Amino acid sequence: MEPSSGSRDDGPAVPPVAAVLPAGGSGERLGGATPKQFCAVQGRPLVSYTVRAMERIGWISDIIVVVSPENIETMKSIIEKYGHKRVTVVKGGITRHRSIFNGLKVFAENEFSDHLLQKPEVVIIHDAVRPFVEEDILSKVVMAAKEHGAAGAIRPLVSTVIASAADGCLDHSLERARYRASEMPQAFLFDIIYEAYQQCTDYDLDYGTECLHLALKYCKTNAKLIEGTADLWKVTYKRDLYAAESIIKDNLSQQVCVINDVKEVVAQAGSLLRESLQSQIKVEAMSASLSKNDSHLQNILSGHCYNFVCVNDKKCAIQETQQLVDVLEKSNIPLLYPVVLILVHLDVSENISFSIGMEELTRIKKFARELKKKNILVYGLLIQYK
Amino acid sequence: MEPSSGSRDDGPAVPPVAAVLPAGGSGERLGGATPKQFCAVQGRPLVSYTVRAMERIGWISDIIVVVSPENIETMKSIIEKYGHKRVTVVKGGITRHRSIFNGLKVFAENEFSDHLLQKPEVVIIHDAVRPFVEEDILSKVVMAAKEHGAAGAIRPLVSTVIASAADGCLDHSLERARYRASEMPQAFLFDIIYEAYQQCTDYDLDYGTECLHLALKYCKTNAKLIEGTADLWKVTYKRDLYAAESIIKDNLSQQVCVINDVKEVVAQAGSLLRESLQSQIKVEAMSASLSKNDSHLQNILSGHCYNFVCVNDKKCAIQETQQLVDVLEKSNIPLLYPVVLILVHLDVSENISFSIGMEELTRIKKFARELKKKNILVYGLLIQYK
Repeated sequence: MEPSSGSRDDGPAVPPVAAVLPAGGSGERLGGATPKQFCAVQGRPLVSYTVRAMERIGWISDIIVVVSPENIETMKSIIEKYGHKRVTVVKGGITRHRSIFNGLKVFAENEFSDHLLQKPEVVIIHDAVRPFVEEDILSKVVMAAKEHGAAGAIRPLVSTVIASAADGCLDHSLERARYRASEMPQAFLFDIIYEAYQQCTDYDLDYGTECLHLALKYCKTNAKLIEGTADLWKVTYKRDLYAAESIIKDNLSQQVCVINDVKEVVAQAGSLLRESLQSQIKVEAMSASLSKNDSHLQNILSGHCYNFVCVNDKKCAIQETQQLVDVLEKSNIPLLYPVVLILVHLDVSENISFSIGMEELTRIKKFARELKKKNILVYGLLIQYK
Repeated sequence: MEPSSGSRDDGPAVPPVAAVLPAGGSGERLGGATPKQFCAVQGRPLVSYTVRAMERIGWISDIIVVVSPENIETMKSIIEKYGHKRVTVVKGGITRHRSIFNGLKVFAENEFSDHLLQKPEVVIIHDAVRPFVEEDILSKVVMAAKEHGAAGAIRPLVSTVIASAADGCLDHSLERARYRASEMPQAFLFDIIYEAYQQCTDYDLDYGTECLHLALKYCKTNAKLIEGTADLWKVTYKRDLYAAESIIKDNLSQQVCVINDVKEVVAQAGSLLRESLQSQIKVEAMSASLSKNDSHLQNILSGHCYNFVCVNDKKCAIQETQQLVDVLEKSNIPLLYPVVLILVHLDVSENISFSIGMEELTRIKKFARELKKKNILVYGLLIQYK
């Protein structure tokens, strides 16, 4: 899956991959004054989700967000507020192509930043308004770009495409199966796309929309086309914002993993909980010992399960949970999706003391405050069980 | 606006307009077992919204819904449950074109129904999964079909369209501005589209998707293309169902009309209410006398305001509201959108009697029960005001 043999942590053994996110659009198709990339979805600007989708991927070294001059401060404050890393904000031009060109220049000219960023071998271009991009498709377009010079995600056409004559009547319709919609992400060998932008005419810069077209026209590079998933859609209309909101909410609630770490005597409580959850939500279950196995947890995570109920009867629920938190942090998943951790502490002691329970809850509260900054939402539940 | 000079009420002075809604799709792009046209949106199947959008238009005489054989009973029960009128259910074929052809045959052959329906001059073809179609665009395509023989709604392309070569690489990209997405509704002179279907090959019936193309190929009819609004989009993916749900919810809450019918002494209460509403929602205000003016109310309704707060201090709030209810029913708006009526009764009598207030509320409750069947949701509020 990894498009380069060296990872960020090891130092860039091979030249890095960078991403340019054009976010300069005015969003006139959306209606309303706020450009769509800055519209709040579940309280967070759309562009922040897209940046997160990029930054959770370790092999992307730099993320360039190109915004119109009046939104530079807004973008900078979003980066600060949500703690985004490896992001450089660049001033956009008056068209999409001019903005992308400006984004590429930070790797080659001193015009837009005080220091040159390390020129990547491959650059990803991805719209700021396509927040649901997965590592899989990013990896595929990067690999294909290395081989072919350029690559882009495509999707089947939803509607038939037609050409109209000068009189406003149908001239001809295209056979739907022979054509595709060109979507994002796209990736290019940096030298190819940069050369294409340097050579292209003002007409291209002002009226063109398709980067793959520039690579073909100016560098004779026929981009490899990669079938993407339905997630790649672009937020264009207000209805798309509604959809994005529902998808993000859905990811919060689709499934849950129950981790049991209890003595046999209270095991029944754990299975009762699981059964009652099963009637409402997809449930994975595992024992605490399995949850200490990295690869097993990775499997759960790769199945898009980001909710956990940890049932235990030990004195301290937090230590037992730390391993799970470590795996979560390493996975970078909480960068994109809020992870929910519910710590259920079964108190089975003979002499139940109210104050001991309160102490445990106070510790969980503190733990929760810290993890919230990392987009892991912790809830504690103390059950006195006889 | 009316595409025919005679209305349904006057009897069909000119041949009527009919609509065929293909609803036979399996919805495999949506995921899940239920075809998208039968998925519940706010508790009601999507197809029911689309049927409503058609049936509220008086000049559409017959609505033919074409469903796959296994869904005929489901469709019939939807028609019964939601009280749809003028609808005929027809068994679909294995492809979209075959289904539409079956829908057209009920006007020309005895194959699909026990009695022939009156052949329309113009037939609208519209997808069951495009619920937000407005009278305006239906009227435009019908008028254009009368003049040109065929007409269809179009929209700008959201993505660039590209052609791929045999090796999976980019062959060429289309200049986005020169092409359009062909959407629905479309309309045809019945004789043209029926002849096109009769002449077309099995290959067309099995692999084609575009009715405008058939009219051009077999009847040399270049359809008139009409720019539609963003509402015309088709529910294709799960995200579209989310969007549809949010749009329907939104229509419930976007604006409100406050109708004041109170003596001067309590007029202040009415304006306070209006001011406080204005901080949260778009508010139209009018006096009760204006609300007795049909055309003024029609203006409010055509601005998509379907929520009403009726403030009065008369003995009986219901009689005062009846006129509004009559206009609403005549407009057919409650067929498509739930209408909310909040009756605020200001009791200004010196000796406030609890039991009199309760009697009034009981009457409103009964009134509300009746109107709920018509998709008008009535709430009563009794305020004792000194």
